Amino acid sequence: MPPRFGPAFQDELAALLEWRRDVRHFRSDPLDEDTVAELLATAQFAPSVGNSQPWRFVRVRSAELREQLALHADAEVARAGSSMSEERRTAYSVLKLHGMREAAEVIAVFCDDATAFGSGLGAATMPETRRYSVVLAIHTLWLAARAKGLGLGWVSVVAPGHVESVLGVSPDWRLIALLCLGHPLEPDDRPELERRGWQSRLDWRANVSER
Amino acid sequence: MPPRFGPAFQDELAALLEWRRDVRHFRSDPLDEDTVAELLATAQFAPSVGNSQPWRFVRVRSAELREQLALHADAEVARAGSSMSEERRTAYSVLKLHGMREAAEVIAVFCDDATAFGSGLGAATMPETRRYSVVLAIHTLWLAARAKGLGLGWVSVVAPGHVESVLGVSPDWRLIALLCLGHPLEPDDRPELERRGWQSRLDWRANVSER
Repeated sequence: MPPRFGPAFQDELAALLEWRRDVRHFRSDPLDEDTVAELLATAQFAPSVGNSQPWRFVRVRSAELREQLALHADAEVARAGSSMSEERRTAYSVLKLHGMREAAEVIAVFCDDATAFGSGLGAATMPETRRYSVVLAIHTLWLAARAKGLGLGWVSVVAPGHVESVLGVSPDWRLIALLCLGHPLEPDDRPELERRGWQSRLDWRANVSER
Repeated sequence: MPPRFGPAFQDELAALLEWRRDVRHFRSDPLDEDTVAELLATAQFAPSVGNSQPWRFVRVRSAELREQLALHADAEVARAGSSMSEERRTAYSVLKLHGMREAAEVIAVFCDDATAFGSGLGAATMPETRRYSVVLAIHTLWLAARAKGLGLGWVSVVAPGHVESVLGVSPDWRLIALLCLGHPLEPDDRPELERRGWQSRLDWRANVSER
């Protein structure tokens, strides 16, 4: 029989979903291997189109490759800033956008666009649903990590082709996210982008309409 | 202070993530409005690139529009089947791919690719992260619904442009998913695609490598 979830669990889940946070400030102490394995296994219970399981996780263990990726992200962060208005640039300059040098783990997540798994089911009209499936796996990992008190940050200020080439992955693999995973440096409350006045949260009703 | 989650919650969360299921068999009795509102609000606690919140939820309340979408999905399901090998077609023909005629709610979810929210932060090199943010909101809704004993099914056998035109949304909006939400007809255990021999689950280690 499938599990049944009571009101206490539902409330705690809502608290997790509401507070989740993207973490960019990490301590550097390592995670134990069992925890990393458990999280990578849990992530793969995510739904995927046609059950194609197109997610490919690459743990970046090499310090040299990690530094190459961090330098690339630094350069892209600077480049994005240089095209902003002066007012925006001031707000931008105080944001920390990645914790790739400190986090215990850097994990690159790819979509195998050419997987034969799932035989194309559900992807005929929307092939992008393969990549969306990988996003679902990342979110699954994210929530499981946060429930364990760990931090996760999604770095997107990188050029996918560059990351694919640094890590030497198959030409069929497309970068979906570069993740930092580790012990958070400080307790998080409000999102950094809200706290620092970058972008506040809308009332949820603003994004709902009817037909 | 941020919430702390104990081992009992972590175990129950793991059970939810593992069992979650894509639901295609629904009863037709309605959901109460408070539940729908709560789920649509919870979904919007999802992370989004630059806090851009680009998700746009459209509840399809009109029976006529719903039937137009169901007919379109039926046609696309048939079309996808016609290009399959005979062996695959037999397996395919017994799959139920959507519950759009029965589910209490049909909700189309779009990404506003042109939103000014978030001022482009994090989307300079990977503009697709806006659409990925919408996927994160859908997954958030999915988990919250499942924890309440409700079913959710993601329909992707539709042509996005057709759905956008039937629902008359802004030209900047791109369809990410058509969702069925309601009371599941039967308890689910294993995924329908596994149960019916379409595609089994891989060992998680197969999708993890190191550099």
